[in-house]
Amino acid sequence: MLLIGERINGMFKDIREGILNKNPEPVHYWAKRQHEMCAGYLDVNTGPTVEAKDQPVVMEWLVKTAQEAAPLPCCIDSTNPDAIEAGLKAHNGKAMINSTTADQWKMDIFIPMAAKYNAAIIGLAMNEKGVPKSAADRVALAMEIVVNCDMRGVPMEDLYIDPLVLPANVAQEHGAEVLETLRQVKILADPPPRTTIGLSNISQGCTNRHLLNRTYLIMSMACGLDSAIVDVDDDALLDAVASVNIMMNKDIYCDSFLKTFRSK
Amino acid sequence: MLLIGERINGMFKDIREGILNKNPEPVHYWAKRQHEMCAGYLDVNTGPTVEAKDQPVVMEWLVKTAQEAAPLPCCIDSTNPDAIEAGLKAHNGKAMINSTTADQWKMDIFIPMAAKYNAAIIGLAMNEKGVPKSAADRVALAMEIVVNCDMRGVPMEDLYIDPLVLPANVAQEHGAEVLETLRQVKILADPPPRTTIGLSNISQGCTNRHLLNRTYLIMSMACGLDSAIVDVDDDALLDAVASVNIMMNKDIYCDSFLKTFRSK
Repeated sequence: MLLIGERINGMFKDIREGILNKNPEPVHYWAKRQHEMCAGYLDVNTGPTVEAKDQPVVMEWLVKTAQEAAPLPCCIDSTNPDAIEAGLKAHNGKAMINSTTADQWKMDIFIPMAAKYNAAIIGLAMNEKGVPKSAADRVALAMEIVVNCDMRGVPMEDLYIDPLVLPANVAQEHGAEVLETLRQVKILADPPPRTTIGLSNISQGCTNRHLLNRTYLIMSMACGLDSAIVDVDDDALLDAVASVNIMMNKDIYCDSFLKTFRSK
Repeated sequence: MLLIGERINGMFKDIREGILNKNPEPVHYWAKRQHEMCAGYLDVNTGPTVEAKDQPVVMEWLVKTAQEAAPLPCCIDSTNPDAIEAGLKAHNGKAMINSTTADQWKMDIFIPMAAKYNAAIIGLAMNEKGVPKSAADRVALAMEIVVNCDMRGVPMEDLYIDPLVLPANVAQEHGAEVLETLRQVKILADPPPRTTIGLSNISQGCTNRHLLNRTYLIMSMACGLDSAIVDVDDDALLDAVASVNIMMNKDIYCDSFLKTFRSK
């Protein structure tokens, strides 16, 4: 289970201020902290307040600043192709592009970019019409991304299909459809693409957010989820992941399995 | 999600002493307490120390004693057919028989008994050869129970297939197979049989038992589990069930969903 730390994002006040003041301290802090808390990738996102023309420079700075503090690859998170490419150029190791949709014009930009930089890429099961409700329609969009990756030379182990999690308080009917999508994506190709979700979306605007996030992560892992963008600064969430790993036989049981998970 | 409270069982010291001394107090306490904690059925089991010849009388007493304290049906738990039948005779409402295996001689006793008393019945996916490892072999045994219930007039909504959960510290490879069995059982008939598990087995002999139990219950519910025999005296477990119900769209979201779940 690959955990992608969500915290280096300009939508959070400390990161936004770090970007504005060119102060690396909050980025360093969250790179280190998320590394300690078992993140395998660091999501980096300039946030909504950086103007489009400035996003490439800010993304380059975020990637470099994050990687100087922690030995982790980045998940370069933007809708702006120039920002993504600036991040890829500045990156050491295997980056991840977050993300393309199933719109052809977007796939034509981002999938060749993944191939060129040997990066992984997240493919969202949506297009210009929005997020479909049913698993079948989500899977159809995932298949378009699979085919485009295959044509452009991006191997399936570098593609992470994200079925798109929506908040439980406004889109309750989507929760079970996402789980079914996670299962069906695994039969789209052999070897199959990987899967990911933006976990915190499930509890947007809800009470008991940590409980809902943790519970939905467990449910998704039982359906074959390979990775998730999460708030890793949450001990109960890490305990849940460690427990699922035991019961899915991915880690060998020992009495100190919670501690062992954190030490890996 | 039907929660079957596991606590009225002679393997627990207080219940064992209540049985020995004909003292109804511990049975009353646990009937009431489990009712408060959202149990929909009360499992009643004489425990390992009552001799076979005494089991029918003790089971009759357990059922009557439990039902005089809480308005709940019982899940009559014994390998002794005479004890099961004594419990069924003493029972008010729709009882559940716990359990038959897929051995023909056992099915020939317990399934007609379920039909006669209009009781539900738990069917274990095992036979005299033991518990199979693979989901496919578990499902094959489940199918034998489905066919026998169908022949004997026990409707599918009264059959609860239990794929048999084994401890994570000694049978790790079974965890994922049980989840796959839960999914596949749903395509054995239309309408399909229901499913149940004896949850606490997953953590027998393990550390962090409540965490493992709760996590595996969430995983199983994501795979379509309908009921489970559990320790309901566990607030975090009830919070988890309430959360899954929201995200599977079985209960409507409201900000006080944890409280609402308990009040139903």
